[in-house]
Amino acid sequence: MSAIATRPAVDLADTPVVTIDLDVMEANIRRLQAYCDAHGIANRPHIKTHKIPEIARAQLAAGAVGITCQKLGEVAVMLEAGLRDILVTYNVLGAAKVRRLRALADHPGARLTVAIDDLAVARALSDAFAGAGDPLRVLVECDTGAGRMGTPTPAATVELAQAIAGLPGLWFEGLMTYPITDDTARFFEATLAKLDRAGLRANTVSTGGTPAYPRAHTVPGVTEHRAGTYVFNDRATVAAGAAAWEDCAMRVRSTVVSRPTADRAVLDAGSKTLSSDLQGQTGYGRIVEYPEAVIVRLNEEHGIVELGACARRPQVGEIVSIIPNHTCVVTNLHDALVGVRDGQAEVVWRVAARGAVR
Amino acid sequence: MSAIATRPAVDLADTPVVTIDLDVMEANIRRLQAYCDAHGIANRPHIKTHKIPEIARAQLAAGAVGITCQKLGEVAVMLEAGLRDILVTYNVLGAAKVRRLRALADHPGARLTVAIDDLAVARALSDAFAGAGDPLRVLVECDTGAGRMGTPTPAATVELAQAIAGLPGLWFEGLMTYPITDDTARFFEATLAKLDRAGLRANTVSTGGTPAYPRAHTVPGVTEHRAGTYVFNDRATVAAGAAAWEDCAMRVRSTVVSRPTADRAVLDAGSKTLSSDLQGQTGYGRIVEYPEAVIVRLNEEHGIVELGACARRPQVGEIVSIIPNHTCVVTNLHDALVGVRDGQAEVVWRVAARGAVR
Repeated sequence: MSAIATRPAVDLADTPVVTIDLDVMEANIRRLQAYCDAHGIANRPHIKTHKIPEIARAQLAAGAVGITCQKLGEVAVMLEAGLRDILVTYNVLGAAKVRRLRALADHPGARLTVAIDDLAVARALSDAFAGAGDPLRVLVECDTGAGRMGTPTPAATVELAQAIAGLPGLWFEGLMTYPITDDTARFFEATLAKLDRAGLRANTVSTGGTPAYPRAHTVPGVTEHRAGTYVFNDRATVAAGAAAWEDCAMRVRSTVVSRPTADRAVLDAGSKTLSSDLQGQTGYGRIVEYPEAVIVRLNEEHGIVELGACARRPQVGEIVSIIPNHTCVVTNLHDALVGVRDGQAEVVWRVAARGAVR
Repeated sequence: MSAIATRPAVDLADTPVVTIDLDVMEANIRRLQAYCDAHGIANRPHIKTHKIPEIARAQLAAGAVGITCQKLGEVAVMLEAGLRDILVTYNVLGAAKVRRLRALADHPGARLTVAIDDLAVARALSDAFAGAGDPLRVLVECDTGAGRMGTPTPAATVELAQAIAGLPGLWFEGLMTYPITDDTARFFEATLAKLDRAGLRANTVSTGGTPAYPRAHTVPGVTEHRAGTYVFNDRATVAAGAAAWEDCAMRVRSTVVSRPTADRAVLDAGSKTLSSDLQGQTGYGRIVEYPEAVIVRLNEEHGIVELGACARRPQVGEIVSIIPNHTCVVTNLHDALVGVRDGQAEVVWRVAARGAVR
C-alpha cells in the first residue's frame, strides 16, 4: 500500500487504542494473494474485518478482484470510496433494502452480486431488477455443513438456481458457501453435476473463511475465495492453526488501571473495547507481555485479569498489548484504528463502515 | 421529558433497528426517582446505559442531582451538552487523561468528582490539581464484595482517604462502591467508624447498580445511588428479579432473513448488533413474539435461532422484537436509538457518547 508520509499526532499511551502493525498486515495480504495466485483462484476479501476503504484498496492493489460485504451499509461506504466489484453474501430483503440495493447497483461502474438462499428473496429482487439495464448477478448460498444459512442439499440448490435463472432481472451466476467443511467438496461436486444436467452453468463458485483458506483449491469448481480475518488475524485464528502469533497485526493497547490484590489486575479494556466474544478461547484475549495472565471477566470498561500464574506482574499505569480473540468485532467497536510501523503511528484510519448496521 | 412534536421519518421495517418505548422508559425513570426520594437518597444515574444527553436531561428533570460517567470521553460529551455535576467512577491515570480531566474540570460550571482506589492515581491527580482554583473531589472506591476494583478492607480505605486528605489539590469527599453485596453494610459501617476516629468525614457515600437498588437505603451512611440499566432494563435485570418484562423499554427489531430448516431461523441481528454478552442467560436475547425460541449462536451479522420448542414459527421476512440480555452494550453498538410511543417513532437520538473509548 502507499506509504503515508505524515506522522499523525496520536498518543499511543492514551488507552484503550487499537493498533495495526502495517508490516504484519501487508505480509498477511501478500500471503493470501500468493496462495490464490498459485492456484488460479480469484481473491475477494471480506471487508467486515476492517470496514476501512483504504485497506480494501490495499487488498485490491495486491491483486484482489473485488471485495465482499455483509450488508448494504458496508456496500454504500465502499462504493462511495471507489470500490466497484462487490459481492453481498447476505439475503437482501424488505422493501427498503431492496430499493436501496437497486439504487446502489445503479451507481456508475458498480458491479454488484448477491448471494441468496430463499425463493421469496429471489422473487422480490426480480421484481426490483426486472426493469434494470443489467440483470443482478445471484449466487445461491449453500449450507455445506456449517448449519447457518444456505440451501441444505444439492437438489434444493439446483431447484433454486433454476428458479433464479427463470426470473426476469436476475442472472444465475453460481454458488457460494461459508466456511469450507469436510462436506463442501462432496456437496459442490454433486451440485455442479446436477446443474450441468439441468443445462445451467456456475460461472462463480465462491468459498469463504480464513482458517480453511489453504484448502480452497481442493473444492470442485472453485473460482474465488473470500477471507476476512486473515488481514489482521487474531487469537482464534492462531488457535485454529491458521496463523502464528507473529502474524497477528492487531493489538488493543490497554492500561493497568488497578491492582487491588496481588493476584488481580484491572485493565481499561472491557466488553465495550474487546467485545465478549470468546470464540472457544479461555479468557478474553492474550496479553502479549504477560502470556500466563488470564482475562477472566469483562465488565463494560473493566478487564479483570487473574495473575496467579505470572512470575512477573504489572504495575498500575503500565500499558499492555492484547491480541483479541476476534478481530472483526473489535474493529466494529472503535471509530478509528491506528496503523503503526516499528511501533510508531503512521496512519489513522476512520472505521468508515462502522455503525452501518443496515 | 419534553414531548417532541415532529415525527421523524424512520422506517421501523428497515432492520436491525433499536427502539426505546418512551412510556416504559419514563415510568422507569420515575420509579427509581420515587424510591430515592422516599429514602432521602440522591439519584445520580449512570449514563453508560444510554450515552445520550437528552435522556440524561430527562433523568435530571425527574429529580436526579447529577450523572455518573465511566470515562472522560463520556464526560466531554455530557459537559458539552450542558450537564454539569458529573461523577467519574474510574481511576483516571496516564498523562494525557490527567491533563484532559483538568481541562474538563475547568469547564465553566463543571462540578466533577472522581473515584479512585490507588495512591499512585491520587498523587498524579494531586500534581495536576494543586494549582487549580477548586480542589478535585475524590471518593475512595471500596471493594465491598464484588472482586473488581476498590480498596479491599476498611483499614486500606481509611489509609487511602487520609493520604488523599493530605494531598494538595484534592478533597476527600467520601466513599463509593459497586454493586451492593451482602458485605457492603458491614464494610461501610466499619469504614465510617474508622474514618470518624481518624477525624475524617464522608460527605458522600455512593452505592451503585440496578438489581440491588431497592436495598440502597439499608447501607449505613448512604447519601446517593448510581443506577444505569434501570432506564431501559433488559433480560438480565428481569432474571435478577429487579424488573418485569413490561419494564423493558429496549427492543432490537430484527428480520427473519432465512429459514433453512424447519427448526432453524436466522435473524439479521448478530454479535455486531446484540453483542455476545450472555450475562448468565441461555441464548442471546428473548424474542418477544416467540418466547420459546432460543437464539443459540451469534455470528457477526447472523443470529441463529432454534425453533424446536415453538408451536408457531416465523416466516422469512417477518420482523421480530428482541429484548437483549444486556442493554448497555447494545446501545454502544449503534449510532442511534429510536424513541417510540404506541409503536410510532417519536424521536431519533444520536448515541452521542458512543465511540468515546477513552
